[in-house]
Amino acid sequence: MRPQILLFGDSITQQSFRSGGWGAAVADIYSRKVDVVLRGYGGYNTRWALFLLHHIFPLVSATPPVAVTIFFGANDAALLGGTGKKQHVPVNEYKENLRRIVQHIKNLSRNTLVVLITPPPIDQQGRREFARSQYGDKASESPDRTNEVTGAYAEECVNLAKELGLPSINLWSKMQETEGWQKKFLSDGLHLTPEGNAVVSQEVVKIFDEAGFSDLPYDFPQHSEIDGENPEKAFLQQCAAV
Amino acid sequence: MRPQILLFGDSITQQSFRSGGWGAAVADIYSRKVDVVLRGYGGYNTRWALFLLHHIFPLVSATPPVAVTIFFGANDAALLGGTGKKQHVPVNEYKENLRRIVQHIKNLSRNTLVVLITPPPIDQQGRREFARSQYGDKASESPDRTNEVTGAYAEECVNLAKELGLPSINLWSKMQETEGWQKKFLSDGLHLTPEGNAVVSQEVVKIFDEAGFSDLPYDFPQHSEIDGENPEKAFLQQCAAV
Repeated sequence: MRPQILLFGDSITQQSFRSGGWGAAVADIYSRKVDVVLRGYGGYNTRWALFLLHHIFPLVSATPPVAVTIFFGANDAALLGGTGKKQHVPVNEYKENLRRIVQHIKNLSRNTLVVLITPPPIDQQGRREFARSQYGDKASESPDRTNEVTGAYAEECVNLAKELGLPSINLWSKMQETEGWQKKFLSDGLHLTPEGNAVVSQEVVKIFDEAGFSDLPYDFPQHSEIDGENPEKAFLQQCAAV
Repeated sequence: MRPQILLFGDSITQQSFRSGGWGAAVADIYSRKVDVVLRGYGGYNTRWALFLLHHIFPLVSATPPVAVTIFFGANDAALLGGTGKKQHVPVNEYKENLRRIVQHIKNLSRNTLVVLITPPPIDQQGRREFARSQYGDKASESPDRTNEVTGAYAEECVNLAKELGLPSINLWSKMQETEGWQKKFLSDGLHLTPEGNAVVSQEVVKIFDEAGFSDLPYDFPQHSEIDGENPEKAFLQQCAAV
């Protein structure tokens, strides 16, 4: 059994295996070392994520994941007055829901590396343009999300990581450090372009590598180690313990 | 437990989660329905793949994969006189090795859909250019692979699929139907460009869809089915059986 990394989140996780996606990039970087398990649920907030906890992370699991990324907040931060109001979760509840998710995973396995990722920033102009491209004149004039409100969720996500001593990625801040982040990193004011995906995979891999994941062994001999005349030798050496 | 699709092959499978890769595309298309498990081994031929069979497909597995793609031959077809001679496997042995792989998987589970994929065609000029870019004047003048020889392996792969009544993808033929396949589909005369990856994912998905994979259920409610006031309702309905 290879170690597993589980990606738990909303659409930004669900879509992370599209071309240029951050999840596929992580899977590629640790190929032959780790399996990446995709558990992304488009449109979900942390309140709904709680319903999935015992299904995705059963407490009787024989082999808990070595790492979990928890990447929610983009929907929790939807405004009560906008088209995503059903998804809205108050910021304090968001933080407590995240805490329950972390605690559940830590109950499963204290050694699992849990990484909290904040929602990305919001490009309100991009959201408006996207709404108009979808609904034309019928597009709502009130914003579904604002960058400022999403920023408050990002802050609580990072605060919780500090409280619990977990690594975190403040994507909301990080992306805004780059000139032109609005169009460079976001495709519709919210979801990620390939460049935006690259920011996530770089930050995630940085944390995983600090935890030693790049030193994990390959699951079978590299072909350069195989003697064409006596292939069994390399396999006997490396597969005996598998 | 979600159903699993396992991708078993050489570097063209191992690299299939790179940007634009066919494996990631399959994972994306069936996201929330199926887990795609990557078992690609760069440089491997079918002779070496046999050493992995019992590790990758243990006979005691409680949940065998619903589908397996078997995608070898690019290294088996390396010429005895070239730089990849260590990887060479005679074409008859290649066919019998493939047969053993299929039989092992079918012993594990008769219901597993096994798909045989032939190696892609070889662009010999592309191979020469690649060798020169790597080794300059020291690059070997004798080809490591030829399109004709690889074609013989592709033919035996398809023949075996017919004998065993399995679906197959003749990538060697399929790609050569397109004008300019040499540079359009191959990055170094052998490995796949994003366009080449797209050919594979389209053909694989065609077979999976014919087997009904697109009708597999989502693993949890779509967010549109969740009532914001009573979210538990959707989860009680859909998670009771999970």
